Amino acid sequence: MSARSDGARTRRGSERRRAGAIHQLPRRQIINRYPRLAIVSEDEIEALHQASLRLLSEVGVKCYLPEARSILNRAGALVDDATMRVRLGRELVEHALTTVPPVIELVPRNAQNSTLIGGDNVAFATVLGPPNCSDIERGRRSGTLADHDDFLRLAQFFNIIQLIGGSPVEPLDIEVRFRHLEATRSMLTLTDKVPYVFCLSRQRIHDVFEMCAIARGEDLEQFARRPGVFSIINTNSPLQYDLAMATGVIEMARFGQPTLITPFIMAGATAPATVAAGMAMNNAEILFGVTLAQLVRPGAPVLYGNAAKNVDLKTGAPAYGLAESYRFTHIGGQLARRYRMPLRSSAFCASNLPDAAAMLEGVGAIWAAITAGANLLMHGAGWLEGGLCSSFEKFVLDVEVLQNMAVWLKPVTVDAETLALDEIAEVGPGGHFFGTARTIATFETAFHQPIISTTQNYGAWLEAGGLDATRRAHRLYRQALAEYEPPAIADDIREALDAFVARRTGEGGAPLD
Amino acid sequence: MSARSDGARTRRGSERRRAGAIHQLPRRQIINRYPRLAIVSEDEIEALHQASLRLLSEVGVKCYLPEARSILNRAGALVDDATMRVRLGRELVEHALTTVPPVIELVPRNAQNSTLIGGDNVAFATVLGPPNCSDIERGRRSGTLADHDDFLRLAQFFNIIQLIGGSPVEPLDIEVRFRHLEATRSMLTLTDKVPYVFCLSRQRIHDVFEMCAIARGEDLEQFARRPGVFSIINTNSPLQYDLAMATGVIEMARFGQPTLITPFIMAGATAPATVAAGMAMNNAEILFGVTLAQLVRPGAPVLYGNAAKNVDLKTGAPAYGLAESYRFTHIGGQLARRYRMPLRSSAFCASNLPDAAAMLEGVGAIWAAITAGANLLMHGAGWLEGGLCSSFEKFVLDVEVLQNMAVWLKPVTVDAETLALDEIAEVGPGGHFFGTARTIATFETAFHQPIISTTQNYGAWLEAGGLDATRRAHRLYRQALAEYEPPAIADDIREALDAFVARRTGEGGAPLD
Repeated sequence: MSARSDGARTRRGSERRRAGAIHQLPRRQIINRYPRLAIVSEDEIEALHQASLRLLSEVGVKCYLPEARSILNRAGALVDDATMRVRLGRELVEHALTTVPPVIELVPRNAQNSTLIGGDNVAFATVLGPPNCSDIERGRRSGTLADHDDFLRLAQFFNIIQLIGGSPVEPLDIEVRFRHLEATRSMLTLTDKVPYVFCLSRQRIHDVFEMCAIARGEDLEQFARRPGVFSIINTNSPLQYDLAMATGVIEMARFGQPTLITPFIMAGATAPATVAAGMAMNNAEILFGVTLAQLVRPGAPVLYGNAAKNVDLKTGAPAYGLAESYRFTHIGGQLARRYRMPLRSSAFCASNLPDAAAMLEGVGAIWAAITAGANLLMHGAGWLEGGLCSSFEKFVLDVEVLQNMAVWLKPVTVDAETLALDEIAEVGPGGHFFGTARTIATFETAFHQPIISTTQNYGAWLEAGGLDATRRAHRLYRQALAEYEPPAIADDIREALDAFVARRTGEGGAPLD
Repeated sequence: MSARSDGARTRRGSERRRAGAIHQLPRRQIINRYPRLAIVSEDEIEALHQASLRLLSEVGVKCYLPEARSILNRAGALVDDATMRVRLGRELVEHALTTVPPVIELVPRNAQNSTLIGGDNVAFATVLGPPNCSDIERGRRSGTLADHDDFLRLAQFFNIIQLIGGSPVEPLDIEVRFRHLEATRSMLTLTDKVPYVFCLSRQRIHDVFEMCAIARGEDLEQFARRPGVFSIINTNSPLQYDLAMATGVIEMARFGQPTLITPFIMAGATAPATVAAGMAMNNAEILFGVTLAQLVRPGAPVLYGNAAKNVDLKTGAPAYGLAESYRFTHIGGQLARRYRMPLRSSAFCASNLPDAAAMLEGVGAIWAAITAGANLLMHGAGWLEGGLCSSFEKFVLDVEVLQNMAVWLKPVTVDAETLALDEIAEVGPGGHFFGTARTIATFETAFHQPIISTTQNYGAWLEAGGLDATRRAHRLYRQALAEYEPPAIADDIREALDAFVARRTGEGGAPLD
């Protein structure tokens, strides 16, 4: 792996396509111009909306952070500090919804990797947060910074990934109080794509903000003017915001950075065992966070974070990426559109291996998400085991799926040129088109080249080694790491980041609260 | 495996759920009430339609069968017998389209397995036609009648399959001139679902019609009054109908049985290397078959058979189930809807193994097909290697995917009961719903139970054997064969079928033309 940081040389290197190099789609904003699938009626969406408003005003949310309760109270919410219960009136919520921006531009340190979130735009983020990782050669293991950094290199390498899930695997070999510092340094030096913020205490959030500001060559005030990072707020369903999550909503909003407000809804466990109740509660918890964020800073970017699903009622385990979850996914899309909010969805799966089940589940989840109108797909590459493991092979398999979706989303041109009636007439019945001028001119560009799938017939495939897709993905991830080149970074920025990490480490990092 | 043919006992046997038996969705008509995805504009669909009409009137189709040319000629088509070229005027085609039935009911010998094709109805057929088959224990091998019959048993066993692709693997151990007789006997005795007709010569078609009529207790005249079988017509793209296929269109129409008119369009090989040209030619070839069928018998059931795709232009191999094919799939759906014709689509894949790639490809193809509005999904279970191999494990993996689609298609109920606001209020913030009356009452029925996917965590899964999904599918297919019970059949029908096969075998079967 090259350690060069000379931008010009690196760029030239990337453009000179080497023989046998991994073929990818170019970096670009992915746009979904297709209609979104609506699976319930407008009346049913209205019923879900009204049910959520009733939950917020009648049952309320338990909010552990006094500061949050106080903000909401000042705006007119009914607050009971003894029980920490906050009840929101309909007007408060509906007013908050009017100031949510429908589209956000996230600008990372390399502005060429800026990404639009919302509207017709689609962006893919890596897996985030598993404590374990695996590859088929070295097996399953606890995450380390070395593995974490290799996932970041893959995220940087594959053009189809626009956002970095801060820790594609938890670097468990780094002490917790220093972990956000080391992870953020890796994110900001090994990649130049949109980074993630760890919403796990005010101190950690501010540390990451400062580092991301340094990376963009800004102070905190400048940083707060332009979204450039993102974070997930997982509510503690049912109907709870704990200290860390409420703090996250407030600090992210204060600095104008987007949160993906994503309730931890599992119908049958944290919600009643119906899709409708799960979605009503999911919606209520999102609207609570949206209201808080908009009170902190009207116009604060927030995403409709949908990860609702059911549990397997026989075992109590979450049914990540299984059939029922598609229905939650599409209804979430409809609700987000009702509010004109950008939609976060997820490429979940339950499988314990990067095998046929992982794809059976994951591809279904991704099709559901994209047809639901997802603007930001979390866990887009690498997720296994319901989030307890990230897999290097799964990462590459998912890259193939995401590229497939991008190919599908590319609008088809129907015009005289592409209809090619003259070409058809010239070849005539019974002929073939292998040798027409068009085929010869476009044989490398007319159709997408997959990286995992192969059209080799059985004999040729067997002769080439007869590797199954997971083994081919293993080989590709090793190749991607070998082809990886670190992005350019100015020496003064690199030094300022290192100095910040050294200072904050010297101060003891951010101890657990 | 039980060989009982006592209907009453068999039925009771099926209803008595044994401990550890494979859990399935019940047999029922699957309905797609969701909107269909349109990926090009109405204007672009019109341009494709007009381009097809121009191809039919200006370039024409080479039709090898004199009888077909004569039928078309009598109706006003321009026919040149020397070149076998047939040119169809716009009015002829547009008139034919007015008599195509939008919905067909297929009634097999067990009328309880009747299946609607068209409108909002969805039906799944097995793989059809590979010369090879495989399972991970015995490996890849040439098809035999024993393997063929085991696939039929799986098709009968799994409720999610409604139609039998005549030969889920070719029984290559049976001489060609007898093969249709033996395969049809297996179809009509090992299953009581909708059977397939082999359109490979007039004699074979009539043999199968006679057997299917016997199975329904009818003579040929009665048989021709009610659709109960189906067949695929693959045109010889570009723009050719060979003897067998034109004969198939005529004979199936004459007997009122539906054909899936499916051009063999591969953009870059049998069509120009663009999606638009591929779809224009695909459409022209379908409209040609539709016109011929409607001239033979106005109102003859025909499906819009879409299996258009591209080739890998570097190798010339068809790109079955790869990313580009989704775009062909959705445009095919739009064209079928323009003509109010039932849509056939396909669960293709290119993979050589029942592995992660097979699911990556196959699940994408199935999502594309269903969201395109497919009414009949061909090769719904078991297809591998671009159609050169059928896999027992893939069959079960696909059953899981098809069940998932059926679960997704089940409309969500949003009403006071399912919104469960009282239940939420009662549990309140921070509680859980494992113990509510609803959860306890519905824990077996609230959510779908998968057969391949598992929510077992890594440790529990490892302890349970740590089998990957393909190995679990292997175990399940063995279990399904063990649980299989042959459907009831009246003794006189069974005897009549055997007598027919014996007679036709004695007469030398149906030699190759």
